[in-house]
Amino acid sequence: MKLEHIGIAVKSLGVSDELFEKLLGKKSYKKETVEREGVITSFYEAGESKIELLEVSNKESPVSKFLDKRGEGVHHLAFGVENIIEEIERLKKEGFQFVSEEPKEGADNKLVVFLHPKSTNGVLVELCQEKA
Amino acid sequence: MKLEHIGIAVKSLGVSDELFEKLLGKKSYKKETVEREGVITSFYEAGESKIELLEVSNKESPVSKFLDKRGEGVHHLAFGVENIIEEIERLKKEGFQFVSEEPKEGADNKLVVFLHPKSTNGVLVELCQEKA
Repeated sequence: MKLEHIGIAVKSLGVSDELFEKLLGKKSYKKETVEREGVITSFYEAGESKIELLEVSNKESPVSKFLDKRGEGVHHLAFGVENIIEEIERLKKEGFQFVSEEPKEGADNKLVVFLHPKSTNGVLVELCQEKA
Repeated sequence: MKLEHIGIAVKSLGVSDELFEKLLGKKSYKKETVEREGVITSFYEAGESKIELLEVSNKESPVSKFLDKRGEGVHHLAFGVENIIEEIERLKKEGFQFVSEEPKEGADNKLVVFLHPKSTNGVLVELCQEKA
């Protein structure tokens, strides 16, 4: 497993894109709306990993609830895997809980699934596999 | 800037090392006490980046205050830089605030400095430079 990206919940991409462009010294290389998650994403390269800013596009988004409860900050860590079905099976056997066990389409041409933060030290962990 | 590591605050390395070994499918490759920060760290490889678990060894540790306030979870993101002094100057000019502007010795043979999360979307950002 490699660290594929870090998702950061922000109130406004307008404000935060400017901030992260200054911080990282580079521009966002992609923006993408993920309807199913109710977010607009903005991506930055950071070595082998990426930073994914998340702005809410729909009040029902889980990111909207996160912002209400915790404020802006790190929302999830995403680990890239070769075979997401095998990893889900492996981790279920190890006792990990999933938000949903069925991989869904995420941003950046990925199949994604989330582990429940209760089973991972308060960290929302995403597994993602590049779509063929 | 590349994402060098992610620091995760945990209550107990005994419990969390077992959890992250199962999650990542590999063992912690190093444990190191950082007296100045009042933490014991445990490192995992995750591609080019690392996961750094942080257990409090001293009640005065900033990580102790974080756990009291937020509970377990992602504590900081660390970006590796070639020249930490130059990066501090660059980011000060861009308007970023630092917890302290003077680099100090951190874990893993690094000089480290922290930006204040108020100026970085609620994310505690560490800059780190490998020591010569």
